Amino acid sequence: MPEHEWIDGGVTAPEGFYASGVRCGLKEHGRDLGLLASPAGCTAAGMFTSNSLPGWPVVLDKDILERHGPVAGVVANSGVANVATGAEGLDLAKGMSARAAAVIAARWGAEERPVLVAQTGVIGEVPDAEKITRGIIEADLALGLDGGADFAEAIMTTDTVPKSRALRIDLDGGPVTIGGAAKGAGMIAPNMATMLAFITTDASLSPDAARALLRPAVDGSFNRISIDGDTSTSDMCLLLANGKSGVPIDADGPPAEAFAAGLAALCQALAVDLVRDAEGVTRVCRMEVTGAASDGDALLAARSVAESPLVKSALFGGDPNWGRIWMAVGKSGAATDPERISIHVGRVPVLEAGSPTSDGKRLAVGPMSQDEVAMTVDLGLGDGRAHYWFSDLSYDYVKINAEYHT
Amino acid sequence: MPEHEWIDGGVTAPEGFYASGVRCGLKEHGRDLGLLASPAGCTAAGMFTSNSLPGWPVVLDKDILERHGPVAGVVANSGVANVATGAEGLDLAKGMSARAAAVIAARWGAEERPVLVAQTGVIGEVPDAEKITRGIIEADLALGLDGGADFAEAIMTTDTVPKSRALRIDLDGGPVTIGGAAKGAGMIAPNMATMLAFITTDASLSPDAARALLRPAVDGSFNRISIDGDTSTSDMCLLLANGKSGVPIDADGPPAEAFAAGLAALCQALAVDLVRDAEGVTRVCRMEVTGAASDGDALLAARSVAESPLVKSALFGGDPNWGRIWMAVGKSGAATDPERISIHVGRVPVLEAGSPTSDGKRLAVGPMSQDEVAMTVDLGLGDGRAHYWFSDLSYDYVKINAEYHT
Repeated sequence: MPEHEWIDGGVTAPEGFYASGVRCGLKEHGRDLGLLASPAGCTAAGMFTSNSLPGWPVVLDKDILERHGPVAGVVANSGVANVATGAEGLDLAKGMSARAAAVIAARWGAEERPVLVAQTGVIGEVPDAEKITRGIIEADLALGLDGGADFAEAIMTTDTVPKSRALRIDLDGGPVTIGGAAKGAGMIAPNMATMLAFITTDASLSPDAARALLRPAVDGSFNRISIDGDTSTSDMCLLLANGKSGVPIDADGPPAEAFAAGLAALCQALAVDLVRDAEGVTRVCRMEVTGAASDGDALLAARSVAESPLVKSALFGGDPNWGRIWMAVGKSGAATDPERISIHVGRVPVLEAGSPTSDGKRLAVGPMSQDEVAMTVDLGLGDGRAHYWFSDLSYDYVKINAEYHT
Repeated sequence: MPEHEWIDGGVTAPEGFYASGVRCGLKEHGRDLGLLASPAGCTAAGMFTSNSLPGWPVVLDKDILERHGPVAGVVANSGVANVATGAEGLDLAKGMSARAAAVIAARWGAEERPVLVAQTGVIGEVPDAEKITRGIIEADLALGLDGGADFAEAIMTTDTVPKSRALRIDLDGGPVTIGGAAKGAGMIAPNMATMLAFITTDASLSPDAARALLRPAVDGSFNRISIDGDTSTSDMCLLLANGKSGVPIDADGPPAEAFAAGLAALCQALAVDLVRDAEGVTRVCRMEVTGAASDGDALLAARSVAESPLVKSALFGGDPNWGRIWMAVGKSGAATDPERISIHVGRVPVLEAGSPTSDGKRLAVGPMSQDEVAMTVDLGLGDGRAHYWFSDLSYDYVKINAEYHT
């Protein structure tokens, strides 16, 4: 299977994608409106938040994607989420989509195609329509084949660094490129994409292939991270494929496999980028659960550890208080046998088959104090396994979220 | 139905209960071993943590209670939880129970009856058996009819104040007293008793009546509070009834109803005491969900709000960012209709039938900055309702839990 090679450029790395990021004034500082366009149209697939009270962009985009036709791109803003805004908010999202579609069509003299919308930020406020209109006009003027970095910046909320990734795969039919931009910071928990992520590719995909490829890539990446266990109302992961490479990726076969591996790698890299830039993060943990009765049980246990405020506080303190891992596994609902559980912090065994090791807590202080901590829980019951990345719970997480709105 | 009257004395307020709290050195400071005895024996019932990896005291006590015979009392220590300690830990818990049973029987020349055990604190360390033995001997010497306050102190871990309550009810058959002591602070989430709570009464109860009365009282109190959503491995609520008042409470009828109301009031008071003394607490919220499609849905929604780190951070900041309540309701799994939800902070409407009120966020700053904040979410769908108490997420919660172990 061909290897992939990491390259620069983010969402504009694949052929034929234009992007920009400008300031329209919805946030206090910095770029807050991004435009991503592939004027000739592209196949699109999306995964959305499981929250039952989603924002209007989620409602609108699901509707656009259900028509299965090509889209012209994405317009995104940060600062205001357009959630819980009543009918006025839906009109605004529709107007934003229509205006972006019009400017893209006008610029290239192309057929007008729908534009997907993404918005994140404060809930319960209707975004200022005039600012958004002005932003779209400026973003249109700024569109460029090297705009990936600006676009990644424009979607940030409490993120401190933009997340932008791209890779190239040399398939038998020729090279194919996949690019991506994501934002995270808070309200990051699984149950689908719990942030904004935009993936572009110049591979040629059918709508069915795009959907089939996106799901496992998201499940193994954005659905395996936790910052605070909260499920945002605005989150989505969109995949846009414009076919410019001339390389078709069909349902199965070796090219699809290599493409899927590349897509998974890109999504995993962006997902870990999100955890590394979590609100208030000081330390990141990669949790591995093995020996579970099933993969589902392993996932339950891993998620329970990843979302426990007590485990996350101990991670912040660099404190190998593995009793909290035991507690979190026990409350997870996974099948357990207290006499078969073993826990490692880094390579240090702290619990072996249910009994504490003699000097484990002392020896584990070192590996627990790293910037990236590895933890393994072996349940000793079967072959089920799962991994999870999570951030610590720090003073700054609380500070950021106590002061975010006012 | 007769009213109840609050009185002093905690677990020793009912007739015939002796208690003490002494220092044996398991914690850094203060009393850390408590003894509670009713030498003539009492009927006992218990509810225990739902964690599948519980501590040895939970395993031992369930075994004792399954025999349905009278017990002599409870021995409890704080500082070390005796969880994840292998076979050595079980031997220790059994030895602790046997020694306490022996000293109580010897002191009163009574028949030897089993003693229940409760232990909380650090997980993964075997408590020092010598310290516990010495503690039990001292606690026996200190037993008194006014020892309720010392007992309540001895079970504290990161609690800053003891929680001790008692009330008297004048039933037709005569007065009956109920007393209680509880500890909480962290790892407080529902799914049964998520802390230690000991309830005593001089009413005369059969084992069946004790069990039947305890469950609804715990469901409406200790199972309606959340500090961090973590489910401890050590938690239990025990009810001991020694019959000294001579007033029998049978399965049904008016005296049982009045007793149940008093027991519920006592458990609720202790539960709210726990939230008020949560780790790092600065503000407490009473959440009310109404208009849900069912009581179950109301509970899902209330719990989701109560456990959301983002809602809890906003509570700490006194920030009426009700969008996070919307988010938490949406992720709860409860049936929702975005056009029917209304939210109040105190008496200020911030969202009415899905639309933000014009000046709600500004007006809600006042009620959101109180020591006790009331929030109401009306889902506008049916008659389902539920309440929940929760604490905020503060710098100090993180500090306490980052530094607790090392």
